[in-house]
Parts: sequence; structure tokens; C-alpha cells
Amino acid sequence: MIRIKVPATSANLGVGFDCMGLAVSLYSTIDFEQSSQKLIINGCDEQFQNEQNLIYQAFVRGCQFLNQPIPNVKITIDNHVPVSRGLGSSAVCIVGGLMGANLWFDSPLNKEEILTLATEMEGHPDNVAPAILGNLNVSFTDSLENIQNVAFKVSSDLFFVALIPNYQLSTKKARQVLPKSMDYQTVSYQVGHAVALSKALETGDLQLIRQAIIDKMHEPFRSKLIPDYSAVKSICEKDGGVLYISGSGSTLMAIASNLNDAQKIIDETKKSFPNWETHLLSVDTKGASGVLI
Amino acid sequence: MIRIKVPATSANLGVGFDCMGLAVSLYSTIDFEQSSQKLIINGCDEQFQNEQNLIYQAFVRGCQFLNQPIPNVKITIDNHVPVSRGLGSSAVCIVGGLMGANLWFDSPLNKEEILTLATEMEGHPDNVAPAILGNLNVSFTDSLENIQNVAFKVSSDLFFVALIPNYQLSTKKARQVLPKSMDYQTVSYQVGHAVALSKALETGDLQLIRQAIIDKMHEPFRSKLIPDYSAVKSICEKDGGVLYISGSGSTLMAIASNLNDAQKIIDETKKSFPNWETHLLSVDTKGASGVLI
Repeated sequence: MIRIKVPATSANLGVGFDCMGLAVSLYSTIDFEQSSQKLIINGCDEQFQNEQNLIYQAFVRGCQFLNQPIPNVKITIDNHVPVSRGLGSSAVCIVGGLMGANLWFDSPLNKEEILTLATEMEGHPDNVAPAILGNLNVSFTDSLENIQNVAFKVSSDLFFVALIPNYQLSTKKARQVLPKSMDYQTVSYQVGHAVALSKALETGDLQLIRQAIIDKMHEPFRSKLIPDYSAVKSICEKDGGVLYISGSGSTLMAIASNLNDAQKIIDETKKSFPNWETHLLSVDTKGASGVLI
Repeated sequence: MIRIKVPATSANLGVGFDCMGLAVSLYSTIDFEQSSQKLIINGCDEQFQNEQNLIYQAFVRGCQFLNQPIPNVKITIDNHVPVSRGLGSSAVCIVGGLMGANLWFDSPLNKEEILTLATEMEGHPDNVAPAILGNLNVSFTDSLENIQNVAFKVSSDLFFVALIPNYQLSTKKARQVLPKSMDYQTVSYQVGHAVALSKALETGDLQLIRQAIIDKMHEPFRSKLIPDYSAVKSICEKDGGVLYISGSGSTLMAIASNLNDAQKIIDETKKSFPNWETHLLSVDTKGASGVLI
């Protein structure tokens, strides 16, 4: 049996809209094994137990890319990445399926090739890059239409806290609320902040992160779509943390510089929002992995 | 006598428009000494030998900030940073004058305080930050109106070649030619490229620099104002280098990954443009300095 383990990912990170993503220590595992039937899927809602399942579609894409017959497969999902919450659940499916197919046929593809395939399926590399490679990633499509991906190590002094509302925020709505253009001065603002943020995450300088992460591109608009944004931001900042909207939400990610502050943010959030899921996370440094078991 | 040495600086670096700047190993020195007259200035055009001189104005600003009487001063300039060519000549004057005043009164100000004063005078920190601190700098004004400045070391494997046309490009014209706004997709392009560029300069990865530096914000518009831009770009790329417009031009800065390529770029440029000034440079890692001699 093949077991693929894929981390959740948190894209955008404030000023890194549509180009930055971070792998965090929250994992789903997906098992692939030979089956007597064409397709069996366990571990997800019944509505997804069919050929439209994104993991299976990525598995099929992998087989096709490798010019291999699509095997009868049983897929068993142990999912810990909440769906449609801005934590890269679709990247988990795509990366999981592609890596499953790759390992099924003895791993002819390296991670860069898997990244290219995954980006084609997802439409952008922001989540699939860190899901595959781990760490903080910045990605862009270069002048030759190749994906360029640069990994940054994040200081182990930083703790990440995923505060996951018990409601979704539709990606479509989160896109619609954005302006179409930005004045030049604000573009320089975004660029300067993002470059500084990447360095601040590397060095673990939370005071610099606190300033560098302040976005003018999507957070001011999307925060209005998350009813509890202001309340959670207050909790987070009272406890010394820095907050950003993970992906297009609804998850709010807090960054803290010590375990004590991180735990306080969780405890206080739980008090106000007892039905929210919370996770104390570190940065995943390895990215997705696969084993034969 | 006080001698202040200030490096030239190269702002923008392609995708770092109005927020990134690099200190390079081309220096002007400015001497300050007690004078019997209110003001004597040597080493510059006669039209600048008066109280409107930017070095003197910065010197006066420094004295005023320190609540000190403005001394009678003789200023002697040994200038190697060409004026109005996109190499931070005004930053040299401002930083030189402020540091001269600071050293005159026994250095009560640290470099961060000088940076704040210099930014107020210059209007932006892009040149004065690297001129004071050395290295690659990214700067932004934070939510409390403080200047945040982050320094990046640049790989010593990289060589910089300043190709300085024998004509100016007015900063005003270089501003007028720019659009006022940018669509969101291009903003993400700029941000992703700039973050990648900062890492590529740190690691000395010229192949990544070649892609990451490709700007859509000012270079496509300003390059049309520099008649020889395309010719020089061809020379540079033929010899393995990467070209960007330094500041708002007219200087074109080439980056090469070895001394041989850098020298070839100079030689070829000299062939086509014998009246241009060229300099083979490295990154200045210390910033402006002052000594009593």
C-alpha cells in the first residue's frame, strides 16, 4: 500500500497575495492500494466518493502523464485539513493524487515535475508549491512560462495558530470583493512590505512581521466578509500575536513568538468561539512525502 | 578635519521600484573643516558653491537638529558619483552633510537617526538607506509613520557594472512616463518577482536574478527614454549579464556572475559608446563612514 502525507498550506500571508504560501504541520494522509473494483473511496463525504473526486482526478492525471494504464484503486483518506477554509485542502488532494500515481509507478517524477503538474491542475502554485516542497515559498511564472519557485526557511522561533471558523468563505465571493487595480504608490508599498516580510519570517523578527504583513491588497476587503475578524484580531494582538487571513479565508492565522502567547491566543479564541477548530502549528520543512507500507 | 565617505547607490533594481536600493563601491568624499568665512565650497561647479548647496543644507539641518550653532565651514568635495544619472548623487550630498554635522559635534546620532533625517530631506529612503547602511536595503514606512529598513547581504559572487551614458534623464520626465495604476495580477507579479529577487541576490543565483528582475512597473516605460537602452541590453545579455535601469536612469547597471563577463560588458560598451563612463563595482557592505584626519 502507498501512503502519501501532505501538509496544509497557508497562502497570501498578508502582503504575499497570490504569490506566497507556507506549509504548516497539519497533515492529511491518503492511502492508495490495488482494488478489485475500478474505484473505491473511503474517508470523505459520500458525494465525493466517485470519479469526480479531486484526489482521484489527480491520480488519473499522474498516470496519464506517465503514459501508464489507470489501475483499479482503493483510496482511503484520513483528512485533517478542513475543506474550503483557506488551508489548501484542494492542494492536498491534487498533490496527494499526483504523488500517489508517481509512487505507484516507482517514482519517475521529481518534486519539480510534480509541482508543474500540480500547478496546471490548481491554476496557481501558491498552495501546491509549499505542499510539495515545505517551508515558505514564493512563486512566479517566468518570461518563458516556467514556474519559478523560491523556498525560504522560516525561523523555528515562530509559532503559527490556525483559528478556523465554523463557516466557509466562498473563494468566488472573496475574489469578487477585490478592486481590479491599485495605484503605483500602493504597489511599492506592497512590494517593500513583502520583501521585508520574507526576511522577517526567516529571522523570526515578530516586531518587523507585525508591520511588514499589513496588507492593502485583499485583507481590508476580505476581512469584512469574515464576521468575527475584528474580534479575533483583538484577541490575537492582546496576546502579542500577529494575525492574517489564511488563503482567501475563512481561517485566521496567528503568528506568535513563543508557545505561551500561542496557547493564550487559542484559549481566548476558544472562550469566544467554542465551536471553532484551532491548531497550534509549526512550519512544515519537508513537504509532501510518500511511503510504501 | 572631518572626512565623510559615502557610496553611490542604485535604487529600484528592476522590480524593487521605490523601495529597494543597493550600495556600490563608488565613493565620494567630503571634507569639512573650520573656516574663517561663513562658507567656502570647493570641488563642484561654481553655481553650487553657495548656501543652496545640498551638502551644506544637510550640514545645516544636522546642526539644527542637534541644537548646535552652525559653524563657519569649508567644504571640499571629491566627487566620483555622477550627478543626475540614477546613482544616488543627491543621497551622497544629504548623507555627507548630515554625517559631517554629526561628527563635527562628536557623533551624538546613530545611523538610524541619521537615516530618519536623511529620508525627511530626500523624500524617500531608497537611496539614503543603502548609502548610510551599505548592502541591499528594502524600506517602507510603517503604520506608525516610522521608516522600517531591512538590509540584505548580497552574494560576493556577483559583480555590478555601471554603464553611465553621457546624457541625463530628468527624474520628472521619468516619473511622467509612468502609468498611475496597475492591475491586480501584475501587482502579484511584481511582489513575487521582488521577493524572489531579494533571495536570488543573497544567494548569487544569476539565472534566477535574470527572471526575477524583469519589471512591468517602470522599466518598460523608462527604457524608451534612454535611446541606447536596447543596444546596451543586447551587449550585456550577449556577455552573460543581466541589465536594469539604475534609479530613474540614465545609468544602466549590469549584473554579472564573474569578473570576465563583467569586463567583457565594459569593453563592448566602450566600443559602442566611447564617451560613456563605466565602473566595475562590488557591493558596498559598510555604508557611509566618517573619520577625523
